[in-house]
Amino acid sequence: MALGVSGFPLTMVVHILAIPAIIMVLVWNIHFRGGLSWNSSNKPLIFNIHPVLMLIGVIIIGGEAIISYKSLPLKKKNKKLIHLVLHGMALTLGIIGIYSAFKFHNESGIDNLYSLHSWLGIGVIILYGIQWILGFVVFMYHGDGDGGSSSLRSKAVPWHVLMGLSVYLLAVGNASLGFVEKLTFLQSSGLPKHASEALLVNFTAILTILYGFFVVLSAVSPSSTI
Amino acid sequence: MALGVSGFPLTMVVHILAIPAIIMVLVWNIHFRGGLSWNSSNKPLIFNIHPVLMLIGVIIIGGEAIISYKSLPLKKKNKKLIHLVLHGMALTLGIIGIYSAFKFHNESGIDNLYSLHSWLGIGVIILYGIQWILGFVVFMYHGDGDGGSSSLRSKAVPWHVLMGLSVYLLAVGNASLGFVEKLTFLQSSGLPKHASEALLVNFTAILTILYGFFVVLSAVSPSSTI
Repeated sequence: MALGVSGFPLTMVVHILAIPAIIMVLVWNIHFRGGLSWNSSNKPLIFNIHPVLMLIGVIIIGGEAIISYKSLPLKKKNKKLIHLVLHGMALTLGIIGIYSAFKFHNESGIDNLYSLHSWLGIGVIILYGIQWILGFVVFMYHGDGDGGSSSLRSKAVPWHVLMGLSVYLLAVGNASLGFVEKLTFLQSSGLPKHASEALLVNFTAILTILYGFFVVLSAVSPSSTI
Repeated sequence: MALGVSGFPLTMVVHILAIPAIIMVLVWNIHFRGGLSWNSSNKPLIFNIHPVLMLIGVIIIGGEAIISYKSLPLKKKNKKLIHLVLHGMALTLGIIGIYSAFKFHNESGIDNLYSLHSWLGIGVIILYGIQWILGFVVFMYHGDGDGGSSSLRSKAVPWHVLMGLSVYLLAVGNASLGFVEKLTFLQSSGLPKHASEALLVNFTAILTILYGFFVVLSAVSPSSTI
């Protein structure tokens, strides 16, 4: 069942969509929300780190990690290493981004972990970590092994792809939930429904979804499409 | 790239997950939200039709439509008809469900179409309609055609699957957005963050996501798994 999209530069679409998504999340949090700070008496500046790191880390770098097998004109061994390193970066930025949300809550006296977004987020980051460790053990640690581990690897590939894409799609969906949750909080505190900030946040969410769609399409598409 | 899940009753998992999901959305809207009504001076009762029809229609019946090729021990011709009819039911219930949200807004003086959930919802229902019409024209109307249309059908299948699963996943994600949007509205009007209703709504959303996951997994899984 071939999709017949060879020739169409799917991975280039991913790279290009990343640019406005990164700009928009930065404009939102720096221009509209007042900036980013790890330590500040203005506690919302601590929170602002959260959407920036989750989008740039888990969604954008995580997405580039997924498509690195398709987008890079390198040897498989090198692509495997880049795939591992990019996912490691995505995971690290994701953990720091989640920590910034907890830090904001703790320093502002807000409850932790009562929302669907927070539950799914914890689920995603745990699964992302498990997936990274399993990937390292199966594909890198046993990467130069004998016939037995080669057979293990080829059996593990479809499961690695299934779990990886499922976790990634859950991350994309959960990013959208996060945008909506934050925007609804802002609107219940007086932000007008049709404010330009509301449009910016909603369109950032739409770009995130489109980005995720093209990442998954690039990954499942049969041919390399640099 | 075979997943090796043959033998595991994936489609049975879908059927079973549907039951608590339907019960939970009904308990939420009838027990906690006061019931369903098409015409009422108590306008929120009109809105309550929306989540019930979207979940039972688009997500549950739409999901059963997707997996009907895998779940039914029938001839292909019959399964194709059931697939078409179930998707037609899902689409119809989805349109009525969206109409009930507009009806509630219009009769309550609330703006329409300012949220990400509403935009994605309109997008999903339009794409669902286009997909249904294209599916009918390509696979049913040309279903008994000559070699030329048979070749068209086999070329169209992977695109039909890609677009169908993409639209369905967007519907599942958007249902989660809807649960979170409504819950955040209720919480900004005084519902305690840890109320049992909040838990119910969040767990209904989690069940919806799990249901969608197993629908897509059943669809892409290589073997029939009744």
